Amino acid sequence: MTDAIDFDRYDRIRPIRWTGDSLELLDQRKLPFVVEYVRCDDSDAVAAAIHALTVRGAPAIGIAAAWGVVLAARTVDAADGAQAVALLEPAMQRLNAARPTAVNLAWALARMRRVLAAAGSDWRAVLEREAQAIAEEDLAANRRMGALGAALITPGSGVLTHCNTGSLATAGFGTALGVIRAGVAEGRIDKVYAGETRPWLQGARLTVWELQQDGIVPTLIADSAASHLMKTGEVQWVVVGADRICANGDTANKIGTYQLAIAARHHGLKFMVVAPSSTVDMDTPSGDAIHIEERDPGELFGVGGVRTAAQDVGAWNPVFDVTPHELIDAIVTERGVIERPDAAAMKAAFGD
Amino acid sequence: MTDAIDFDRYDRIRPIRWTGDSLELLDQRKLPFVVEYVRCDDSDAVAAAIHALTVRGAPAIGIAAAWGVVLAARTVDAADGAQAVALLEPAMQRLNAARPTAVNLAWALARMRRVLAAAGSDWRAVLEREAQAIAEEDLAANRRMGALGAALITPGSGVLTHCNTGSLATAGFGTALGVIRAGVAEGRIDKVYAGETRPWLQGARLTVWELQQDGIVPTLIADSAASHLMKTGEVQWVVVGADRICANGDTANKIGTYQLAIAARHHGLKFMVVAPSSTVDMDTPSGDAIHIEERDPGELFGVGGVRTAAQDVGAWNPVFDVTPHELIDAIVTERGVIERPDAAAMKAAFGD
Repeated sequence: MTDAIDFDRYDRIRPIRWTGDSLELLDQRKLPFVVEYVRCDDSDAVAAAIHALTVRGAPAIGIAAAWGVVLAARTVDAADGAQAVALLEPAMQRLNAARPTAVNLAWALARMRRVLAAAGSDWRAVLEREAQAIAEEDLAANRRMGALGAALITPGSGVLTHCNTGSLATAGFGTALGVIRAGVAEGRIDKVYAGETRPWLQGARLTVWELQQDGIVPTLIADSAASHLMKTGEVQWVVVGADRICANGDTANKIGTYQLAIAARHHGLKFMVVAPSSTVDMDTPSGDAIHIEERDPGELFGVGGVRTAAQDVGAWNPVFDVTPHELIDAIVTERGVIERPDAAAMKAAFGD
Repeated sequence: MTDAIDFDRYDRIRPIRWTGDSLELLDQRKLPFVVEYVRCDDSDAVAAAIHALTVRGAPAIGIAAAWGVVLAARTVDAADGAQAVALLEPAMQRLNAARPTAVNLAWALARMRRVLAAAGSDWRAVLEREAQAIAEEDLAANRRMGALGAALITPGSGVLTHCNTGSLATAGFGTALGVIRAGVAEGRIDKVYAGETRPWLQGARLTVWELQQDGIVPTLIADSAASHLMKTGEVQWVVVGADRICANGDTANKIGTYQLAIAARHHGLKFMVVAPSSTVDMDTPSGDAIHIEERDPGELFGVGGVRTAAQDVGAWNPVFDVTPHELIDAIVTERGVIERPDAAAMKAAFGD
């Protein structure tokens, strides 16, 4: 059924646009109410946009940074790539510092640095081609994952997703939302539910908006309504992204993912993780080794600048949680599907 | 350890105050930022306050309505109770219509009607005594449940609660929050976590505030962080209230409760339901027979008047969910504790 996917119909949002002489970033702080691209004419403007969350989502940040290097190249004169590397290093450092925890940012910059070092006098063209390749490969990986993941879903299914893992977080199409786009395109998915995803409401603000743009009609739910939804029989799969996948298949993702996995198993439903292979970290043996970032408790005290919680209260605000591999039915990367992931299956797929 | 509870120290909030000639209601719409009592001088003002959610929580609504009848009595002349019943019926109907789904409202009005019908010339005093009795019995039931529930908790425990089941929802002390108050007073509970409880944020707005007033320091979490919290080992019990308890122990409560029960069982933690015996409905055989109210999807589109969700999106907003009795370790009413509730245990306790 894969050949039947009309990708373009379900993939119209691009958070990052290269115009040939500048980078345009869809301002995700203003979504869903204002659709506005911010124009970046130099690499420091790109770094500032990454820092300010104008662009978000690990793959999208990496792509934006690659284009930032292309913009930086316009400000230096060099005979070949080796010379250019040294001259561009300060700008690349500033890009890298914009979001130091985003793995894809460092990964994209390292890739740009590598091709540049080997380039001759056409080093500017080499850089531009590499940035283009990073973006195109990300989109291709997402479409491949979409087809692979959707193939697991029985026609007529309902799905529930969490946070935003879509076009907005990638070069396009998305990871978990890519599977949902493909599943809808193939007629496998009838109904899409999106958890609002407190505290930042990426589900309510971003996922719902981007699916609407592609003509997919999502239904928003409170995060705590997920189990009751599962009980109704309206959903058969939970489909989520990942921030890190360990060597045994344990997966770190947005807070609340673990709860969905527990509830899915309780109801006999399936749980799918969708992420590019760059998210797999074979150096981290299991979820126990992952440090869970905790953010400002203030994120729980209100919404959109409106205070809702009582004053002077303490809060605990972990950003991620870890879903143990035992609760995961399938991990989908662009390299293929791993069903019932464990250390052996992960090693077979990703061990070198 | 029960005798050691210093109830007054942990029970300072009263949402309903009778001054002798008027009723004062703590305005729960303005909490936690403004602490303001609304004065009601007649029964229609009480009905309006119930309708407007100035007072909320089934027991609190029943008590307010009883005092509304006392206020209505001042506007009529009658030789005895039988005569007064007829004259007061329109006012009681208006009170009853203020929140037609609140069981305790009809229950309290029926109780007032019954004593009035049997009263002689002192019928005004009879009404006032009955309203006072309804309030006092509710407070006494809550303190009794608090002691019974707390006795189940091993010293040094952490607890997680959901929504608001506290002083604010009752005559005082609360149901699930009463157990938490008693547990803190007895040194059994070291740590209290409150889920924020989307969409209305009763946890963030009310529970956190009222515990603070009594010197208990709660920690607020996103509803979706509950399972991750359980995994850390910081909590041993989930303690919640109930809107209806069926003949087999299945319990309807605020949306999200079911999800907490599933997660508690997954982690080997205990799950306690605390509610007065008036919440038990032996005429409803199981949770399958409960109609789950769905409210305006718009409640999920924003917070405090600030729109956060994308425009024109659909949402599913069930208010309650049902926790099957198999996931409940203890049901606590003022009549005693039912461990591992099922139809037989419920019949033994509540069958007539």
